[in-house]
Amino acid sequence: MTAVAESRAPVHVGVDIALVVPELRRWIDRLGPDLSPICAHQLGADCGKLVRPTLVFACAQAVGGSTGDALPGAVAVELIHNASLIHDDVMDGDEFRRHRPTVWKQYGVAQAVLAGDALIGLAFEALATDAARENAGAAAADLARAVRALAIGQHADLRLEGSTTATTAECLALMAGKTGALLGVACRLGARLGGAPSGWLDGFTDYGGNLGVAFQLVDDLLGVWGDPAVTGKPTGSDLRARKNTAPVAAALARSGAAPARLRALYQSQAPMTDHDVAEATALVERAGGRAWTVDQCHRHVARAWDALDRLPLDADARDALRDLADRVVARMP
Amino acid sequence: MTAVAESRAPVHVGVDIALVVPELRRWIDRLGPDLSPICAHQLGADCGKLVRPTLVFACAQAVGGSTGDALPGAVAVELIHNASLIHDDVMDGDEFRRHRPTVWKQYGVAQAVLAGDALIGLAFEALATDAARENAGAAAADLARAVRALAIGQHADLRLEGSTTATTAECLALMAGKTGALLGVACRLGARLGGAPSGWLDGFTDYGGNLGVAFQLVDDLLGVWGDPAVTGKPTGSDLRARKNTAPVAAALARSGAAPARLRALYQSQAPMTDHDVAEATALVERAGGRAWTVDQCHRHVARAWDALDRLPLDADARDALRDLADRVVARMP
Repeated sequence: MTAVAESRAPVHVGVDIALVVPELRRWIDRLGPDLSPICAHQLGADCGKLVRPTLVFACAQAVGGSTGDALPGAVAVELIHNASLIHDDVMDGDEFRRHRPTVWKQYGVAQAVLAGDALIGLAFEALATDAARENAGAAAADLARAVRALAIGQHADLRLEGSTTATTAECLALMAGKTGALLGVACRLGARLGGAPSGWLDGFTDYGGNLGVAFQLVDDLLGVWGDPAVTGKPTGSDLRARKNTAPVAAALARSGAAPARLRALYQSQAPMTDHDVAEATALVERAGGRAWTVDQCHRHVARAWDALDRLPLDADARDALRDLADRVVARMP
Repeated sequence: MTAVAESRAPVHVGVDIALVVPELRRWIDRLGPDLSPICAHQLGADCGKLVRPTLVFACAQAVGGSTGDALPGAVAVELIHNASLIHDDVMDGDEFRRHRPTVWKQYGVAQAVLAGDALIGLAFEALATDAARENAGAAAADLARAVRALAIGQHADLRLEGSTTATTAECLALMAGKTGALLGVACRLGARLGGAPSGWLDGFTDYGGNLGVAFQLVDDLLGVWGDPAVTGKPTGSDLRARKNTAPVAAALARSGAAPARLRALYQSQAPMTDHDVAEATALVERAGGRAWTVDQCHRHVARAWDALDRLPLDADARDALRDLADRVVARMP
C-alpha cells in the first residue's frame, strides 16, 4: 500500500481527494479500448463531486489511517456509484446527467448495461486486489452487502414510480437503500481500511447511512428548487418526469386542496407543460413538502452526529466528521 | 466452513452438486420479496446444468479439498453466470431461454437490469462472506477479473453482431472472454478454495479457460444443429437472429459460392423465413463451418488436457478432470 506518513493526522479531511482521480482512470483503462471510453464518459473530466471517496478518506483519517490505506475503498465506492448511475438512467429513461447525455442516450442501452456491469466488477477488483490482504475479504463483503441494499432500494424506487400513494416512510426507506447504503459502506470501508477496531465499524456505517439519507433529501430539494447551472439538470425535471421524490411524497401524504391538485397533475397522462411544472412546484411547497424534507434532512444529520458521539473518537476527528455532515446541509436550496 | 471429511477423496466428481441448489436459493432469498422471485425465475426449478459449480467442486476435489470448502465459489460463479445471462438477453433482445421467457421479456428491461446487478453483488457477497478468511480477498479478486473479461468479451460480441467479416480469431477471442473466463475462474476458485498451492492456480485457469471455449463451440453447434427439446430454443434461432456464431464466422471466412450466398442471407434486411433458415443451415455446413467448429472444439479439449498434464496431480484426479472435459465434447450434435 502507498501509505503516506504525513497524512496520518486525523484532521486534513479531503486534502488528498485528488489522489482518487488518477486511480479511477487507471482502473477504468483496464476495461480496454472499447469499454473504457464509455465509462470515462460517465465519470467526465472532473469525475464529479467525489462525495463517497471523500467520506472514505475522512473516516480513515478519523481512526488514524492514511489515505493510501483507504484508496482502494475510495475507488471501489466511486466505481459502484457510477455503475448505479449508468443503470439507473437506463431504468428511468433519464437523458441528461452532469450536463451531458447519459450513457444509454449516447451509446445505447446495451452498451450502458455492459458498462455498468464492468464498473461493478472493477469496483470489487480494485478493492480485493489493492486493499491490505487482512482486510480484502471483509471489505469485499461490506461492499457486496451495500450493492444488495442498493438493488433493493432501486427496486422500491421503480415500484413507487408513478405512485401517488407512497408514504413518507417508504420514501425514507428507499433513500436508506439507494443512497444510505453506499455512503454507509464508504464510511465503514474508510474506517476498516484505516485500521479501526471491528467494534467501531457499525457506528461508521450508521454515521454514513444517515448522512446518505440527508444527502439524498438535499438532492431531492435541488431537483425541484435547485439552480440548473449547478445541478446540471433542467429546472423542475424531477417534477416534469413525475418522479416521486421526498418533497412530492410528503406533499401528497397531506390532505387538502394543494395535495389534491398536485395528485391530479401527477395522475394525468398528458405531458407536463412548463406551466404545470411551475404550478406543481408551488403546490409542493404549499402542501408542506419542502418544509418536511428540510426538517428530515436536519434530523438525519443530527442522527449522524449521534452516531459519532457513540464512537470513542478524538475531538479533532469528531469535529472533522461533523463538519462533513454540515457541508451536506449547506447545499440545501 | 462445512467441510465434509468423507468428500476429501479426489474422484467423486459431481457427487455433491446437489448441495449448490439450496445454497443458491438461500442467497437469492436475501434479495427480498420483490427481487428474489425475478432471480428465481432466471434460475428455474432445477437451476440448469450447473456446469460451473461442477467444475468448482471437481477442481477442489482434484487438489484434495472438500465440496464444503469450495461451495462459496460454486455459488458465486453460478450467480455471475445467471447475471450475465439476464443482461445478455437484454442486450441481444432474446425472448426465450431454458424453455421460458427471458427475464426482460417477463418482467421488463428495468427489472432485468436490476436483477442482474443484484446477482453480481450477491456473487461477491457469497464468496467474500463464506470463503475461508485467508482466501476470501484473493478469491474475490479472481472473480472480479473474470467479470471484467466477461464484459470485454460481451462487448466484442455486440460489436461483431451483424458483421459478416469477423475473423475466426476474433470469434475465438470473444469466446475466451465470454465463456472461457468464467469456466477458467470456476476451476481456479475450486483449486484455491480446495487448498491448492498458489503456483497451481494458473494451470487450473488454463484448463477451465480452454474447456470454456470448447463448451461454447459446442453450444454454437447446438444453436444450429441442436434438438430444440434439448436446447430450449427454437430450431435455428441463432441463424434466424443472424448471430455471428463460430460455425457461421468460419463459413463466412471461406471463399466460394456457399459463403457468398450465406453472406447475402446475413446482409439482407428482410426477416429470415423458415426456408432461409434451412438454406443457411445447409450453407454453413457446405462452407465447412461445422467441420471447423468441431475441429476447434477437439483442439481446445486437447489444450485443457495439456494444462492438466502440466499440473502435479494424482492420476485419479487427472482422470476425473479429463473425463469432465470429454463430457463437454459428448454434447456435440
